[in-house]
Amino acid sequence: MRNDQRSTNSLRPITITPNFVKHPEGSVLIQVGDTKVICNASIEDRVPPFMRGQGKGWITAEYAMLPRATEQRNIRESSKGKVSGRTMEIQRLIGRALRAVVDLDKIGERTVWVDCDVIQADGGTRTASITGAFVAVVHAFGKLLEKKVLSKMPVTDFLAATSVGVLPNGTEILDLNYEEDSKAHVDMNIVMTGSGEFVELQGTGEEATFTANQLQTMLQLANEGIVTIIDKQKESLGDLVNRIGETIPRKSVEEKG
Amino acid sequence: MRNDQRSTNSLRPITITPNFVKHPEGSVLIQVGDTKVICNASIEDRVPPFMRGQGKGWITAEYAMLPRATEQRNIRESSKGKVSGRTMEIQRLIGRALRAVVDLDKIGERTVWVDCDVIQADGGTRTASITGAFVAVVHAFGKLLEKKVLSKMPVTDFLAATSVGVLPNGTEILDLNYEEDSKAHVDMNIVMTGSGEFVELQGTGEEATFTANQLQTMLQLANEGIVTIIDKQKESLGDLVNRIGETIPRKSVEEKG
Amino acid sequence: MRNDQRSTNSLRPITITPNFVKHPEGSVLIQVGDTKVICNASIEDRVPPFMRGQGKGWITAEYAMLPRATEQRNIRESSKGKVSGRTMEIQRLIGRALRAVVDLDKIGERTVWVDCDVIQADGGTRTASITGAFVAVVHAFGKLLEKKVLSKMPVTDFLAATSVGVLPNGTEILDLNYEEDSKAHVDMNIVMTGSGEFVELQGTGEEATFTANQLQTMLQLANEGIVTIIDKQKESLGDLVNRIGETIPRKSVEEKG
Amino acid sequence: MRNDQRSTNSLRPITITPNFVKHPEGSVLIQVGDTKVICNASIEDRVPPFMRGQGKGWITAEYAMLPRATEQRNIRESSKGKVSGRTMEIQRLIGRALRAVVDLDKIGERTVWVDCDVIQADGGTRTASITGAFVAVVHAFGKLLEKKVLSKMPVTDFLAATSVGVLPNGTEILDLNYEEDSKAHVDMNIVMTGSGEFVELQGTGEEATFTANQLQTMLQLANEGIVTIIDKQKESLGDLVNRIGETIPRKSVEEKG
Amino acid sequence: MRNDQRSTNSLRPITITPNFVKHPEGSVLIQVGDTKVICNASIEDRVPPFMRGQGKGWITAEYAMLPRATEQRNIRESSKGKVSGRTMEIQRLIGRALRAVVDLDKIGERTVWVDCDVIQADGGTRTASITGAFVAVVHAFGKLLEKKVLSKMPVTDFLAATSVGVLPNGTEILDLNYEEDSKAHVDMNIVMTGSGEFVELQGTGEEATFTANQLQTMLQLANEGIVTIIDKQKESLGDLVNRIGETIPRKSVEEKG
Amino acid sequence: MRNDQRSTNSLRPITITPNFVKHPEGSVLIQVGDTKVICNASIEDRVPPFMRGQGKGWITAEYAMLPRATEQRNIRESSKGKVSGRTMEIQRLIGRALRAVVDLDKIGERTVWVDCDVIQADGGTRTASITGAFVAVVHAFGKLLEKKVLSKMPVTDFLAATSVGVLPNGTEILDLNYEEDSKAHVDMNIVMTGSGEFVELQGTGEEATFTANQLQTMLQLANEGIVTIIDKQKESLGDLVNRIGETIPRKSVEEKG
Repeated sequence: MRNDQRSTNSLRPITITPNFVKHPEGSVLIQVGDTKVICNASIEDRVPPFMRGQGKGWITAEYAMLPRATEQRNIRESSKGKVSGRTMEIQRLIGRALRAVVDLDKIGERTVWVDCDVIQADGGTRTASITGAFVAVVHAFGKLLEKKVLSKMPVTDFLAATSVGVLPNGTEILDLNYEEDSKAHVDMNIVMTGSGEFVELQGTGEEATFTANQLQTMLQLANEGIVTIIDKQKESLGDLVNRIGETIPRKSVEEKG
Repeated sequence: MRNDQRSTNSLRPITITPNFVKHPEGSVLIQVGDTKVICNASIEDRVPPFMRGQGKGWITAEYAMLPRATEQRNIRESSKGKVSGRTMEIQRLIGRALRAVVDLDKIGERTVWVDCDVIQADGGTRTASITGAFVAVVHAFGKLLEKKVLSKMPVTDFLAATSVGVLPNGTEILDLNYEEDSKAHVDMNIVMTGSGEFVELQGTGEEATFTANQLQTMLQLANEGIVTIIDKQKESLGDLVNRIGETIPRKSVEEKG
Repeated sequence: MRNDQRSTNSLRPITITPNFVKHPEGSVLIQVGDTKVICNASIEDRVPPFMRGQGKGWITAEYAMLPRATEQRNIRESSKGKVSGRTMEIQRLIGRALRAVVDLDKIGERTVWVDCDVIQADGGTRTASITGAFVAVVHAFGKLLEKKVLSKMPVTDFLAATSVGVLPNGTEILDLNYEEDSKAHVDMNIVMTGSGEFVELQGTGEEATFTANQLQTMLQLANEGIVTIIDKQKESLGDLVNRIGETIPRKSVEEKG
Repeated sequence: MRNDQRSTNSLRPITITPNFVKHPEGSVLIQVGDTKVICNASIEDRVPPFMRGQGKGWITAEYAMLPRATEQRNIRESSKGKVSGRTMEIQRLIGRALRAVVDLDKIGERTVWVDCDVIQADGGTRTASITGAFVAVVHAFGKLLEKKVLSKMPVTDFLAATSVGVLPNGTEILDLNYEEDSKAHVDMNIVMTGSGEFVELQGTGEEATFTANQLQTMLQLANEGIVTIIDKQKESLGDLVNRIGETIPRKSVEEKG
Repeated sequence: MRNDQRSTNSLRPITITPNFVKHPEGSVLIQVGDTKVICNASIEDRVPPFMRGQGKGWITAEYAMLPRATEQRNIRESSKGKVSGRTMEIQRLIGRALRAVVDLDKIGERTVWVDCDVIQADGGTRTASITGAFVAVVHAFGKLLEKKVLSKMPVTDFLAATSVGVLPNGTEILDLNYEEDSKAHVDMNIVMTGSGEFVELQGTGEEATFTANQLQTMLQLANEGIVTIIDKQKESLGDLVNRIGETIPRKSVEEKG
Repeated sequence: MRNDQRSTNSLRPITITPNFVKHPEGSVLIQVGDTKVICNASIEDRVPPFMRGQGKGWITAEYAMLPRATEQRNIRESSKGKVSGRTMEIQRLIGRALRAVVDLDKIGERTVWVDCDVIQADGGTRTASITGAFVAVVHAFGKLLEKKVLSKMPVTDFLAATSVGVLPNGTEILDLNYEEDSKAHVDMNIVMTGSGEFVELQGTGEEATFTANQLQTMLQLANEGIVTIIDKQKESLGDLVNRIGETIPRKSVEEKG
């Protein structure tokens, strides 16, 4: 039995509120259980120096927590004067994941800045950030479609993320909350597309190593969870749902052909 | 006529939502027109090194904006590796203002950390932060009263803030929104107590200097606005309203006696 | 009675020594009682990136104290690797104040760097800095007039600053020295022009709030003090005195017209 | 065919030189093809502040590259004044991996500092670092056994790492060199124990997503590679080989029991 | 002929003004030609952590220039957030030099902070700093003698510094001003004691190498200059002159015995 | 007798291994006794901003130690976020010394980056770095000669460095190892050219001052040592030996003519 009575393969309730902040091109509040993240997507009409003149765009992400998003107050990274290793890992992960489903050749020399700010944390903030950021990015591109800046949606597929893990008693579970995450022996974050392929897999067994069988069970749990999460994303996207995938992905491993 | 049809002495609509984030001892979302600030108050059971052993407490504040709280995205201060002068001025102001109405001798060796995070900005973020932070701090002390950690509310009076200014046409106005603030020739932030005394006065005439008469008109506008704002605070404080002032202020200028 | 026998409305002795350092375009040593500040004004023939191409100039200020300007040695800000909030507040104040009396449209794409370095501190270092910096800036523009780089003095009015406050016994006083400042319940810095208008007003009652009556008394004391200080500035400006105001201020609140 | 004529499941030649630097308790130079890393393990007789008084130890890792370890010279991180996100990710990974096979309860209040300095890079520097660091750490504990500071080897199992990936033509390959890594559509780093369990799995498909089948093929390649690498580690450990595992792991997922 | 008509072996005029700033235990303004440095010595009643418990003291120095001490304005090191390599070299040199003539075993667990702030620069700021700092330090110890905190002057000998160099035409000269320094092919700073021994020798031939003969000529010039400079120091020390050397130096190379 | 049985005028064994790392244009491992330094020279086809458009080149050096190059592990400067004063002094010295024997006018707008990374330290790391860096730089220019980018070797003379010092018993010695360096009363680093002229002289007597006679003895020891070291450099340079000096030095003190 899990501490919040869920079955091993149950997700926590998910709510995605679009247009949460008024200024950004795309803005959602995503709630996954008690985890709440504001995901804002901003379009800037230029790319970083190292990409100029190539006619293509870029997506980059930043991630932060309010100091009291957590049970204990954390020191603000602006006060410390530097961003922690954990924050850097998370923002690199979010950016990489989003770039996997956006055809950067189709967005011109623009940068999409994705800001994920956790206002309340209860485990799974990085996977909630990816799931919410995907919606915010689609909304932001929706604005560019409306304004006829772009003629096709450059998003090639859906993208969502969740966590799986192994409890100390050996049970594999889906979507860990904070208490479960603290106790788990194995913790894995998985990012997948709407077509069921992997974008990113990060599994760590600091407290205990894990077997090939456990890995397979966790992959199966994640696969099922992702399908449900993408259904939630669709509800918050309205007519934009049908425009995902209208661009052919720019690259694919030949085996897929 | 003002750009949002208000009369010169009208405030924007104010909403204060208590218990906005679950972890902090006190947490409110304050909305003043389109300005939205999360104000969290956290109690830590120790004071900074320079105050140890004196048996008294401390209140300190931090202020930040989400990168896309504004029309143009701002670079995160954690990425820049340093806090701007503007941010420092604001957080020093918030801390100073709150300390003026809390009897630090009565709270033991504790620090109250006040975090004001602007999620949407439309002018007046620093004064909204002070007004919201006051409520969050009272709630936080309310928790200490409930737990019998404190026996009396250490808050000596109400505290609220607003802005006044002079438009290019010479009209003095109350509670400037972003567009007004950008155009105003004179901008003044005023922090006052429930008993109508001044805590802080910061007036700047970078675009144009101002006369003694204009100053008096602005002070009058602020005075009226503060009374209305404090009424809003009371609505969000419930029974705690009656406990404000049960501690005698620790110091007062003799004239008052 | 004040600790140095002054009456409540007396300033400390003021000395302004022009041409104190040989390299800067304008350089003065200002002494206000035991407070001594070197104010240097440097002209740079370009403006910061955000202002380029607008055909106008900029004035910016920096402020620092020698480590042993004070009774206790302070750690150098270069060693700490960052500038304190207090320093930032002061240098922003000095820059803002000076810009209020210089017609930036008339100086071309030039930056005036004002450096205020306190070599000995006894209270009132920020107001002494403003008063001295004004003289240094006028001298610097004087150099540009001599060289025919400018044809008119771009300074529209005199500018000086002083402090007022309320002692614990309720007495309002002018020009606080360090000991008075440490004990005062209310502390206010006031920057005014030669024509008696306000440029900046910063009043703080951390130790005790203050009433509208006390505010009026303090404003009156400041007003009288500023007149005397401007007389001192005039003595150190020689023929340049007559050139102040030969440019019409670029903006004014209509009421004045 | 691979650019260096290897078959898809071949490792590059591996050489591990023990006692490479004279001062550290454990020091090896590991060469994996043209990738060369100095791995030093230092024992410090205390733990970080947050662990004091618990009677257990800690292992932490740092990773750096000489500026010209790569084809293009990189700016030194000490000159930039901060450690990059990539570096932080790698050093966190190395530390986590090593802690998975060391019984920290058995080493007393000591910190093992592992320094991995890449002097020449040709792909796979992070996995070579883990493989080499493991040997350096065993040597360092060997010193503590010799000196009778410890009576049992606290290392519970072998630990090694390698990379797998998918080339643009869809071929899965083992142990990518720099040129392969630059072109690969999928890149996965895998850390495993001597008993064939997973410690860490990090797979990324930024250029193309990957299927469940591709994942299985990659896991199989990695599994075989790790067995060979551990044989190489054993050759460089001498008699210490037999002491690995003499401590029972402190924790294990129940399923394993 | 030198650009200021001096002969090759002439010093610039030297003035040492004691008690320049009121707070420090020792404070002098030293002028060497147009170079002006405020040297303050502060006594702190504790030593840095690495020296605690040894019963001896420490001397450390900091050096800075006002931004407009030079012909071109320099960016403040506090704004840059770090101290330059040049500054570090100079402050390490000043500290080392002073420690060579102070018996640290005789001053108890105290730190002498020496602050050398250049307010006007015309070459030779580091050597003027050493010469002036020596006087400030003696005055500071004089205060401790007066207060009976120390019973003997812990300064073992006089200490002064000057520069020598080789002009492009091959002429060796003493005490280079800024213009000479900019042109010189060789530049050497020399610190010597009252008994004519060397404390520090730093000679650099970036523009041209120098021969053993040139070195001898420069050493001779420096030797004569130092004698004159020490006479100047004596004039500003009053009765304290006779107390220098009343402590036996703590260490000496045997040859001297 | 010295702690490693050397006579007072003996160098430690020197080995210079060329082509140590494969990527840099010039790369050597230099060993001086137990001191080991990797010296890499990289050619970049541009110069720093302040030198652009002058048609000449630049040489700059960076120096670092692996954390465990020393008996006690040192904190990495990248972790501290700043480069120490000692490191800055050393890298400024290395750069200055190399520039003294390279005709920067003859290398076009190129920068030579010299990286000296100490992997094992036993005294004399800065002088070993200069000696090794010289060889790496000649090799790097050799590459440019091979590629016909340059037609003449721009190195005007040989360059090597060593240390001398005075032991507590008054004996002057050559090439101090770590233990000797820790005890020495006087420590001097000397950089000389193949024609026996001085490039840099840095002597410090923190523990004891030194006489003119001692200085002469040390200079003589250094002179002899440098001759031997340059012979070692020649062995590692092959045919490039004969190309040193084919460019006439750009400047020389007239006396030499």
